[in-house]
Amino acid sequence: MQTIGFDIGGTKIAAAVVDETGREFAETRRDTPRTWVETAATMNGAFTELRDACPGVAAVGVGIAGLVDRSGRLSYGPNLPGLQHVDVLAELSKEFPLPVVVDNDANVAAYGEAVHGAIRGIDDALLVTLGTGIGGGLIIGGEVYRGGHGYAAEIGHITIDLGGPLCACGERGHWEAFASGNALGRMGREAAAVGDAPSVLAEADGDVAAITGHQVGQAAAAGAPDAVALIDRYADLVAIGLANLANILDPSAIVISGGLIALGDVLIQPVRKHFLLRIEAGTERPVPDLVAATLGERAGVIGAAALARRAAT
Amino acid sequence: MQTIGFDIGGTKIAAAVVDETGREFAETRRDTPRTWVETAATMNGAFTELRDACPGVAAVGVGIAGLVDRSGRLSYGPNLPGLQHVDVLAELSKEFPLPVVVDNDANVAAYGEAVHGAIRGIDDALLVTLGTGIGGGLIIGGEVYRGGHGYAAEIGHITIDLGGPLCACGERGHWEAFASGNALGRMGREAAAVGDAPSVLAEADGDVAAITGHQVGQAAAAGAPDAVALIDRYADLVAIGLANLANILDPSAIVISGGLIALGDVLIQPVRKHFLLRIEAGTERPVPDLVAATLGERAGVIGAAALARRAAT
Repeated sequence: MQTIGFDIGGTKIAAAVVDETGREFAETRRDTPRTWVETAATMNGAFTELRDACPGVAAVGVGIAGLVDRSGRLSYGPNLPGLQHVDVLAELSKEFPLPVVVDNDANVAAYGEAVHGAIRGIDDALLVTLGTGIGGGLIIGGEVYRGGHGYAAEIGHITIDLGGPLCACGERGHWEAFASGNALGRMGREAAAVGDAPSVLAEADGDVAAITGHQVGQAAAAGAPDAVALIDRYADLVAIGLANLANILDPSAIVISGGLIALGDVLIQPVRKHFLLRIEAGTERPVPDLVAATLGERAGVIGAAALARRAAT
Repeated sequence: MQTIGFDIGGTKIAAAVVDETGREFAETRRDTPRTWVETAATMNGAFTELRDACPGVAAVGVGIAGLVDRSGRLSYGPNLPGLQHVDVLAELSKEFPLPVVVDNDANVAAYGEAVHGAIRGIDDALLVTLGTGIGGGLIIGGEVYRGGHGYAAEIGHITIDLGGPLCACGERGHWEAFASGNALGRMGREAAAVGDAPSVLAEADGDVAAITGHQVGQAAAAGAPDAVALIDRYADLVAIGLANLANILDPSAIVISGGLIALGDVLIQPVRKHFLLRIEAGTERPVPDLVAATLGERAGVIGAAALARRAAT
């Protein structure tokens, strides 16, 4: 069965036709408009294009960057002001002549990894995305777990430091202020500004302001001790949040996604080391496996299409 | 159907015969011995006493203070050194001529509240016990959720303050070091020692060292401003952890148990106030209900008996 998956982010809307093996047949990508009316029109254009390419598509799945309630309404989405409080499921069900499902973007990415990616066949797992912020998706019994209202797995906003720095949401000490991909970039800039990260600074051609997590990762991958030390400190901050999640949920596996995953063991190994020290009784018991995502940025459209297929069969 | 529930804590073993309405027919209580051999003998004595009183009992459920893996082995139990690494399910299945189930004590208490108590009929809920430490039990789809290895809901050991005080487990900044019932007592003693809690000190007859959470609660219930201010500060520390849990799990309800619950709205109202401020987008969306446990310290035996009944039917 072929279905369409949409991934609606703050800047881009990606969509593709995907079959039950996870293979993509057609895809399209557009800028995210500012209003809901334009967004619906843009999605309609993408839908028409994809259905012209693959006339047999049977359903549509949509992942949205924000809090999506169980009825398919966007309750809260600071990066999508045009969709705030829009009943997206009801609106798109009028727009498309096919069954539609709508969920949070990280939830559908987790489902994509569960059906076609790194956690295939694992009943109880958690996806953690280290990007601009930190996103999460929870798989329980092989299905997306949404919680009582639909808002489960908002893992970036857990408090890990009472007196910590301000988060983008206005509260203090949230995990994503310490352990997002953006936070690694900030650590790199702070270290470079005081002369503590010469190799990272060289990666950015001497421009402190140009340092992102990518430059820190590149320098660490090349073995530069200053960058390896930064990654080790960052890995512990990642591990603190992962240990909190593992203490609460005890998943069989935690799959880590986001651009930094390209670093492979340069990142994953120190995270594993700190995770074992941070999780309760880590030496006395089996702990969740930490694995790298395999679908990359395609997890959203592939997962949304898989969720549509799941609902349509 | 009548079943036996055991609640095995660090100092006491409680057991009772309970039927499908949650009514208790016979009960017994003994000190927890130091070795497994003595513990098994003690449990056998209690079993014989209860089955003599109620010959029709059909199964045995056991809640244990510690990490119980999916095979029924105690993986980690600092308060039960005699049971550490004992395959409790296998041993008790030899001991008792009835079906046996074994789980973590807070998990069975959560199940007790789900079947007979404050969260009856709610599919997705969380029990949080504010006592010596902080315990947790997770109900998903009306059943105890154990996670991949059996260790889910170890919520006391989530980090909320990177530089915070040492927890009993040796790590820093864990929630239970801030928000257990014991932590409220410590807050009371610290405030009284510097003259900031005269009403609390009076509750303890002027003896700073005698102040526990109970004295702080009594003074707050009487309306003393110094104690009300302490409870408000404590309530925010409770709320920070509850908001972390709600952001991750989004349960329909969170049931709070432990001795402090006797304070009723003196505690629950300020916790609700801070919880709304701490949970992500609290004003934009429905949030989990916060409710007080109704089974009190009987939740353990009642829940263990209910879990045995669930497994036997």
